[in-house]
Amino acid sequence: MDSLVEDYLNDILDRVRDEDDGAVADYIPELAKADATPLALAMCTNQGWIYSVGDDEREFTMQSISKPFAYAAALQDCGVEKVIETVGMEPSGEAFNELSLDGKTHRPVNPMINAGAIAVNQLINGEDSSVDDRVEVIVDYFSRLAGRQLTVDENVTESETGTADRNLALAHMLRSYDVIVDSAEDAVASYTRQCAIRVTVKDLAVMGATLALGGVQPLTGERILEPLVCRQVQAVMASAGMYDGAGKWMASVGIPAKSGVAGGLMGTLPGQLGIATFSPRLDESGNSVRGAKIFRALSEDMGLHLMSAVTRKGSSVRGIRTRGRTTVFRLQGGLDFSGAEEFLTAAENQDITTPRVIIDARRVTESNPVGRRMVKEGLRRIRENGKKVAVVDPNNVLGKRRFEDGTRVATTAAEIDEQ
Amino acid sequence: MDSLVEDYLNDILDRVRDEDDGAVADYIPELAKADATPLALAMCTNQGWIYSVGDDEREFTMQSISKPFAYAAALQDCGVEKVIETVGMEPSGEAFNELSLDGKTHRPVNPMINAGAIAVNQLINGEDSSVDDRVEVIVDYFSRLAGRQLTVDENVTESETGTADRNLALAHMLRSYDVIVDSAEDAVASYTRQCAIRVTVKDLAVMGATLALGGVQPLTGERILEPLVCRQVQAVMASAGMYDGAGKWMASVGIPAKSGVAGGLMGTLPGQLGIATFSPRLDESGNSVRGAKIFRALSEDMGLHLMSAVTRKGSSVRGIRTRGRTTVFRLQGGLDFSGAEEFLTAAENQDITTPRVIIDARRVTESNPVGRRMVKEGLRRIRENGKKVAVVDPNNVLGKRRFEDGTRVATTAAEIDEQ
Amino acid sequence: MDSLVEDYLNDILDRVRDEDDGAVADYIPELAKADATPLALAMCTNQGWIYSVGDDEREFTMQSISKPFAYAAALQDCGVEKVIETVGMEPSGEAFNELSLDGKTHRPVNPMINAGAIAVNQLINGEDSSVDDRVEVIVDYFSRLAGRQLTVDENVTESETGTADRNLALAHMLRSYDVIVDSAEDAVASYTRQCAIRVTVKDLAVMGATLALGGVQPLTGERILEPLVCRQVQAVMASAGMYDGAGKWMASVGIPAKSGVAGGLMGTLPGQLGIATFSPRLDESGNSVRGAKIFRALSEDMGLHLMSAVTRKGSSVRGIRTRGRTTVFRLQGGLDFSGAEEFLTAAENQDITTPRVIIDARRVTESNPVGRRMVKEGLRRIRENGKKVAVVDPNNVLGKRRFEDGTRVATTAAEIDEQ
Amino acid sequence: MDSLVEDYLNDILDRVRDEDDGAVADYIPELAKADATPLALAMCTNQGWIYSVGDDEREFTMQSISKPFAYAAALQDCGVEKVIETVGMEPSGEAFNELSLDGKTHRPVNPMINAGAIAVNQLINGEDSSVDDRVEVIVDYFSRLAGRQLTVDENVTESETGTADRNLALAHMLRSYDVIVDSAEDAVASYTRQCAIRVTVKDLAVMGATLALGGVQPLTGERILEPLVCRQVQAVMASAGMYDGAGKWMASVGIPAKSGVAGGLMGTLPGQLGIATFSPRLDESGNSVRGAKIFRALSEDMGLHLMSAVTRKGSSVRGIRTRGRTTVFRLQGGLDFSGAEEFLTAAENQDITTPRVIIDARRVTESNPVGRRMVKEGLRRIRENGKKVAVVDPNNVLGKRRFEDGTRVATTAAEIDEQ
Repeated sequence: MDSLVEDYLNDILDRVRDEDDGAVADYIPELAKADATPLALAMCTNQGWIYSVGDDEREFTMQSISKPFAYAAALQDCGVEKVIETVGMEPSGEAFNELSLDGKTHRPVNPMINAGAIAVNQLINGEDSSVDDRVEVIVDYFSRLAGRQLTVDENVTESETGTADRNLALAHMLRSYDVIVDSAEDAVASYTRQCAIRVTVKDLAVMGATLALGGVQPLTGERILEPLVCRQVQAVMASAGMYDGAGKWMASVGIPAKSGVAGGLMGTLPGQLGIATFSPRLDESGNSVRGAKIFRALSEDMGLHLMSAVTRKGSSVRGIRTRGRTTVFRLQGGLDFSGAEEFLTAAENQDITTPRVIIDARRVTESNPVGRRMVKEGLRRIRENGKKVAVVDPNNVLGKRRFEDGTRVATTAAEIDEQ
Repeated sequence: MDSLVEDYLNDILDRVRDEDDGAVADYIPELAKADATPLALAMCTNQGWIYSVGDDEREFTMQSISKPFAYAAALQDCGVEKVIETVGMEPSGEAFNELSLDGKTHRPVNPMINAGAIAVNQLINGEDSSVDDRVEVIVDYFSRLAGRQLTVDENVTESETGTADRNLALAHMLRSYDVIVDSAEDAVASYTRQCAIRVTVKDLAVMGATLALGGVQPLTGERILEPLVCRQVQAVMASAGMYDGAGKWMASVGIPAKSGVAGGLMGTLPGQLGIATFSPRLDESGNSVRGAKIFRALSEDMGLHLMSAVTRKGSSVRGIRTRGRTTVFRLQGGLDFSGAEEFLTAAENQDITTPRVIIDARRVTESNPVGRRMVKEGLRRIRENGKKVAVVDPNNVLGKRRFEDGTRVATTAAEIDEQ
Repeated sequence: MDSLVEDYLNDILDRVRDEDDGAVADYIPELAKADATPLALAMCTNQGWIYSVGDDEREFTMQSISKPFAYAAALQDCGVEKVIETVGMEPSGEAFNELSLDGKTHRPVNPMINAGAIAVNQLINGEDSSVDDRVEVIVDYFSRLAGRQLTVDENVTESETGTADRNLALAHMLRSYDVIVDSAEDAVASYTRQCAIRVTVKDLAVMGATLALGGVQPLTGERILEPLVCRQVQAVMASAGMYDGAGKWMASVGIPAKSGVAGGLMGTLPGQLGIATFSPRLDESGNSVRGAKIFRALSEDMGLHLMSAVTRKGSSVRGIRTRGRTTVFRLQGGLDFSGAEEFLTAAENQDITTPRVIIDARRVTESNPVGRRMVKEGLRRIRENGKKVAVVDPNNVLGKRRFEDGTRVATTAAEIDEQ
Repeated sequence: MDSLVEDYLNDILDRVRDEDDGAVADYIPELAKADATPLALAMCTNQGWIYSVGDDEREFTMQSISKPFAYAAALQDCGVEKVIETVGMEPSGEAFNELSLDGKTHRPVNPMINAGAIAVNQLINGEDSSVDDRVEVIVDYFSRLAGRQLTVDENVTESETGTADRNLALAHMLRSYDVIVDSAEDAVASYTRQCAIRVTVKDLAVMGATLALGGVQPLTGERILEPLVCRQVQAVMASAGMYDGAGKWMASVGIPAKSGVAGGLMGTLPGQLGIATFSPRLDESGNSVRGAKIFRALSEDMGLHLMSAVTRKGSSVRGIRTRGRTTVFRLQGGLDFSGAEEFLTAAENQDITTPRVIIDARRVTESNPVGRRMVKEGLRRIRENGKKVAVVDPNNVLGKRRFEDGTRVATTAAEIDEQ
């Protein structure tokens, strides 16, 4: 199945590859020197399968993508109450570097803006932690989330520190309201190093999947975060992750996401997937141009949308019965990427002892191209095991009246029996 | 299973019944006269099952709860592009009766504030529709969503029209920016009658479920709305439905929702459920005090949270195998309300031909009280059919080492075989 | 002196006459038809002298220029306390037709924005006044201020009423917060007719002068307003009269002013002058393009600036002494328009019984072209009465070492005595 | 005359002396230790006369009162254009320590908020100036304005530097937008020392008078600032000097003013006066409680209001004629502090050669207690020189029908002649 999904993901990359709008972030010298051409996409499913294409071994710095993960670490270690005393969770329409302190409480309005992220960083490992110790804890957390040892890019750190006026302004303002107690310089140094942790799209996909799966790292099985923490992080990411236009992003793309100025973009679908892209050219809001297009394509083609009814009507496999010489797979709901993947998994795990297999698609309400391609691939594999395969598809949700490979199609089960 | 869920829902009502904070809306005379005591809760699942408790036959006016459904009707009839030219989809921190026009475009910022809702109302049945024709179309739409003929409460309409200055102000402002073309008086009359459509919590639960299920009415099976429309409506409801504090609501409750000043509160979980409560006393933001508490309880106890990983890891029934004299149900993921419901459905649909049944819970990652109660109820039913039942539960996710009813519990399948 | 000043004012008109930037207001049909070419300027001094040039007999509707005068009428009749309970006095950065209600009190933030002006209009003649009675009281007030009977332009009223959505929106919003009690339609009708009162630049200059002079109409000598009322009106006009850019206007022009969309612009200098211009083409803020340029020229050339030190160092005539055969006028401070006018008045009122007159300009700190032209005109008149004239001007503030008419110039009094 | 005015000023101090609302600024440790009791008031007239009462020799740090004077220095040295490229001049409703950068240009909105003041400080002596050199230039400027050598309070500087987070935040933010180029630490050090310059109320009154008089220091006669600079500074002070409530302050008090957290308050009346008070307890906006009350009293009792017509109707002495045995002083306009002072000056400068003096008050439009006391004092002095004095006062503006000292009062000149 891998090649099938990855073919599809490669198709998406091809669609956006020639897009050259946007520009590499220029306010951090080290980033300004970056090669604008790399393009990568990775997905990690709730089963821990990683699909990745393009420059998927290329490392880049997390930058603001570190914010949701640091927020998760702080929530996990300090508890939700302590954290929301320090940083709010309301959206901010403002651009990514403005003050954004709540007018009454003087708390940062949310942890996805820089003021909030600096405050969150300071919560990790306690207020009296040294910068080195705090960064070590963060790198360790992130490494466990990614399932491999991550490192800080000291060149970028150095480079950012030289242009850190905005963050220093925020840190001093936070100090003035007693939101942080460390020196402004140390707070910014600590946050800057958090931002400079190097990852690949595969790392980010796995890290995102861990959030999506309620805190269990899908490769290692380790529970790193409480489900409550993951809910909170993703909820805040949904309302405040994409700066301006969060409402439009959630309506049209529907994947809680966070972007970084080095070109990364990471999203989650609760219970389903972590997704990550890398492409350095940014639009005016600071989001990766090609990355955002890829997310949009995934949402549209694969039905990956938080508000989608398709993938959440319970199992797409309603039941499996053996009637005489026939095994019947009764499918239901939507056949999109996740739905088809479930069917393939169920078919693989079922001991099919009968010579005939019927796929009952009468309760399938909708399908999309990815889903159809994947189901057909599943049928091909069953046939390769020597079974006869028939499909009951009166609504034509699998897309063709005749399969080229000889699979019979009928509109009722009785019709198949007659065949 | 019905009584089991409804017992649970009654428990929740009992928990909030004595709460008497808040006050009945007083700015509409007819509402100010309302009885503050009624309390009701209903849920409608993706299978079309309705669970309802309390004053679930009591009718009340929809008020602002009509907004998402009118938005859905407009999107369905005019297309997304036309609608978003007229009304934006960004959150507004402002209170429910302020102007909230975008500073540049002068469009209402979203359809959940009154200015947006008046503009959306005017899109339905075309700009040149009479008020009576437009209201008839809306009542018809809402009736199809609810699955029964709804009516307009003309007393409330009359009463609101007398205090409609804020809405008239908005309508005149919309006219001044050419957002609407009808007379301000007619626009407000039309919108006011939309708000005065009478429903019960059961109606709202079904209407919400139709959104949650991508537009297919779960009782009638009629496709009323396109999936894209339902995604858009729920996304906007998530970011802008609960006025102030939308971010906090989504983080802590996690159910896209819309409240009305008559005391209704309606929420959706995409792919899963429509939920509705009724209790007339409102907090300062205009949300039902006991309604909000009920939603919070449902989210906490039943894992009903948009960002919850539990219910979306595909099926909770990984597979069903028959090995010799034993049928094995392999469960996975989270056993909450939806997960347990899936198991019960699968068990009911499976022809169990063996004398022994094993529930393999080794892949169950978490459970909650509702989920556990429901799974045990399922085991009881299987035993009543004359089967021997055993549970493999090394992580103790079903909560007890010993079942009172004789169900055997083991930590490995081998251990069961030895028993 | 008249011709001298009017020559100067004509020079200013000539400077701006060819300016054709801006456009006639188009949102009121009757105004959109207006001839764009008229150009007029009038000034009324604290002595009641009116200087006017250009189309100074042309009538136009006051529009927003009616706001400060209606505010004055309300303050005078209801008292300051009652009025500031209803309408605030803080600046609003917002454009002229936005809501601008205070977030806490829901009062209009000031009487220069439409919401505030509608509320102020309703205070005049009591809340239960009919529209006709209220308008009659306002017309009467304004007529007394202008010194002649003014009338309402019913064509413009009719025209505006047809496009009054913004004002109706504001009136309904004000009703919803109980700021006004009359029907929205009546409130807007009353305000619209107030705006449609017809005036010439001479009328406006006299009305402005009445404010500037603390409430005494300079032509009739009638006390119409209390000094306290005039202070309040001009203070609010200074901070909120010119919409956006009030700070810049006050710094660079320094004349509290109010503009109307029919092309009028009216300003005051407390204690000194009322000024008015008429030119229908407006800039984007709704201010008359040529009118604003004329005000700027007056401020720059004539030192007419609220913050100018020149005209306020008490009298420019420090004293008049008779020493033997010589009468000495000791001038001091700044010789600008007002300073020179004072000298001319003093010279006219003084019985000069000596054959020789000395103008002692040693204490004159600065002068401007207008001031110098006027002083020289005064010297010419004294000579015409058969006196010998000499000037002590060591700092050369009168601009020339030699006067063409034979006036002697010296740097010390002794030097003159020697001559 | 001195004692007369100072008696009056002492009366005002007595009125507010027991007021103990407010609290000493506590965010700067050195200020928190301050004695709350000192109370002082000083005025400096356009003639360079200083009236001062209370703790008028007590030194305190200027704090924000340094802002208008540093703004003046920058305008004078760099030119208006350069300065307004760097800092705007629109009012800001915000509290004194918020960001207040213009949303589009990222310039500070005005020089009276800290961000603007830091940017202005950096303009003085050029961008590449050392801190020491810049501070020396500023101290020198301020010393010339005050007419004596001022010094920096290094204790307060030290103390503030320790709590300078807000200013450091602003300085970093300004650097990030290239508004300043110096290091944030140096910029704040420079600004902090500017704020710590020590003054007395007499110094501030003289410095304010220099602004009010268009840039000529009234004691030394030195022209320090251009008139244009003084206009600009006072206009900005009027619209933005008193933080929140600037509109209300200008309407009710009408004196452009600036306060400092050490307890100083400095105001100007263009062309007339500089005024200063000192009382350390501050209200919530950071303004001296008793200081603001004193300003209000001065405005109410003495007619010291920017929008007052009284003091600006030219001279209060319309003319002085000698008719036979009588010298007639024709007074006009308002007899307030400034008007009465003018009469006293004129009387002193006039050679009265006749045995009889008539004060013709028929054109006096209003008077206040201070004005009446002062005129009577003048009459007493004339009588002491052996003259007979009579008053023509048909409107009773001098307050009594009979003077205790024998001055005759009449309603017409003829009536006096008959006496």
